[in-house]
Amino acid sequence: MGTQAWLRLDFPPHSYEYGVGEGVLASLGPKLSQLVRSTGAVVVADETVAALPVAVAVEASLEGVGFVPTRIVVPPGESSKSLATAERVWDRFAQAGLGADGVVVAVGGGVVGDLAGFCAATWMRGVALVHVPTTLLAMCDSSVGGKTAIDLPCGKNLVGAFHQPRLVVAEINALDSLPDREYRSGFAEIVKCALLLSRAELARLRAAAPRMRLGERADLLAAIDLAVRVKAEHVRDDVLDRNDRRALLNLGHTVAHAIETESGYVAYLHGEAVAVGLVVAARVAEARGLCAADLVAELEQTLAAFGLVSALPGGLAPRSVVDRTRMDKKRRGTRRRMVLPHARGGAGVYDVQDAELLAALTA
Amino acid sequence: MGTQAWLRLDFPPHSYEYGVGEGVLASLGPKLSQLVRSTGAVVVADETVAALPVAVAVEASLEGVGFVPTRIVVPPGESSKSLATAERVWDRFAQAGLGADGVVVAVGGGVVGDLAGFCAATWMRGVALVHVPTTLLAMCDSSVGGKTAIDLPCGKNLVGAFHQPRLVVAEINALDSLPDREYRSGFAEIVKCALLLSRAELARLRAAAPRMRLGERADLLAAIDLAVRVKAEHVRDDVLDRNDRRALLNLGHTVAHAIETESGYVAYLHGEAVAVGLVVAARVAEARGLCAADLVAELEQTLAAFGLVSALPGGLAPRSVVDRTRMDKKRRGTRRRMVLPHARGGAGVYDVQDAELLAALTA
Repeated sequence: MGTQAWLRLDFPPHSYEYGVGEGVLASLGPKLSQLVRSTGAVVVADETVAALPVAVAVEASLEGVGFVPTRIVVPPGESSKSLATAERVWDRFAQAGLGADGVVVAVGGGVVGDLAGFCAATWMRGVALVHVPTTLLAMCDSSVGGKTAIDLPCGKNLVGAFHQPRLVVAEINALDSLPDREYRSGFAEIVKCALLLSRAELARLRAAAPRMRLGERADLLAAIDLAVRVKAEHVRDDVLDRNDRRALLNLGHTVAHAIETESGYVAYLHGEAVAVGLVVAARVAEARGLCAADLVAELEQTLAAFGLVSALPGGLAPRSVVDRTRMDKKRRGTRRRMVLPHARGGAGVYDVQDAELLAALTA
Repeated sequence: MGTQAWLRLDFPPHSYEYGVGEGVLASLGPKLSQLVRSTGAVVVADETVAALPVAVAVEASLEGVGFVPTRIVVPPGESSKSLATAERVWDRFAQAGLGADGVVVAVGGGVVGDLAGFCAATWMRGVALVHVPTTLLAMCDSSVGGKTAIDLPCGKNLVGAFHQPRLVVAEINALDSLPDREYRSGFAEIVKCALLLSRAELARLRAAAPRMRLGERADLLAAIDLAVRVKAEHVRDDVLDRNDRRALLNLGHTVAHAIETESGYVAYLHGEAVAVGLVVAARVAEARGLCAADLVAELEQTLAAFGLVSALPGGLAPRSVVDRTRMDKKRRGTRRRMVLPHARGGAGVYDVQDAELLAALTA
């Protein structure tokens, strides 16, 4: 694999290219100019990313082919995924004269992708969207699949839309600017994707971990490529999240969301919570005989290779995490449904009782 | 034609039934229970409609098959198509425990249909929507085609989504509660649809006008049926409003929107503005030789039969209306594009110059 890879993601009736690698940003403008007629574009970024070279490179690539981009900067952090920020973004769309044939370029992590994606999905009932993910998590997860959302005071992601991007450009060099803790936490979703594929993929990923922690490009590119393929494959069969196919991507997330909610979304990064959730799911699967007895240990070693801890964070009561998982969106009535890994790779959705979840959380 | 008609509207991948007639509301619950699994439902209406028998009939029909509807009441008027009202509606969705498998039933005119439709389109990335239009305009126009929207301070319908309903139930008896002026104005869209079909349809509609003004059910049912079929046929080929097919439904609307904007949306009902716009479009077409010389007179007579005036309202300067039409969404760059009627029925989209539009406005 070279220093760039371009995948075509097909979610009928939508189809778009996903580019990842070093210097892929140079292709943003030329590719986009083939996709949209207008020269109207807005670039949405948070204050942190707006100050980085990646924001300049995005605008230069757009201007190079005749786009006249307007920059819209929002405050960093989850609090920007709000209706108040969305309203400010829409107002800026209007000021910029963004028409129905214009394009919104979201540059940043999951927050900006979700916010700008939702604003694009609803502006004049939907304008073209391009994702330029700058975090490992956004490259592997939120920029693929078309989910956009904002939070309400009463819950995360309650208001949103499915809106597939027209193009995704993941510039690996942007990862150099990430704080180490955020960088490492992004690997939890990649570990999840490898686990969904096979034990062999998990082993390969673990072997490459030391090189990736140092930013080795070829390994990183292969890992992102793997995660995007796994996600795309699951999304393709269930674009609107209506059956259990896309739900398999929720492996590790029932417990992860409970940890995030219980800890007020501040103490743990999403990937750190997912790491714990993956191990808990594997423990439940192991107790049921769904997977081999040594999967838990192998998973813990893989996560540790990325500096990710798999024990329930101190200060969180296992009982309250168990209670919180009942609110999971996969629930059916009062039944808790969790994704559990299988022996030969892959996973399934199962009803899980309080007692077995509690046992896995306190193991 | 009996006292009820059920049409199937196909907008692939979406397909739904549209029922119109006397007593169709009794079918709402039974039909809906075939479409959704959940018993969670919210009914959105404005204060005026919430006090009418139609609101009670909707809830009775839902409760009769086991739904447990929560009523959400918003203030009447266009000002409710706002982000602030949408936020209150979403909060009520959360309080009502509306899940991804729940249903939103919008009972009212275009404002409530657009508002509740947008809230449904974006709640958990899209939940089932049912329209129960209670105005003639909503029955013929806004409940068909899947457009939902709210207004921003800087413009109408700027934020929205395409979201097809699962079912539309148009209870003709609800029209008895409409103020006469609003009832009459609803016929402008029906006149437009007849004009898009043929001169013969226009003549038939004119002949039936006196009976319809008295609320004659069979004629009303036929007129609504005609308008819905014409709208559905144009939407089908252009669901996302991307080519000129759906644009033909904009016949009369370039000037109508300019009149509404120039008069601050208070002096003229939408249908009253459309009546003027239809005649102006016919005058431009006549001057170009696109349609017969007597179409304008026939159109004026038809509109008059519904008590609709076709002259530009006093107090509005023709020049300012001409200027305002340049903001129309069909524009391409600086070119004003208008829908003009053809001699044999149907219409086309044409570039129209200031001078010819001004001449038509002052004729």
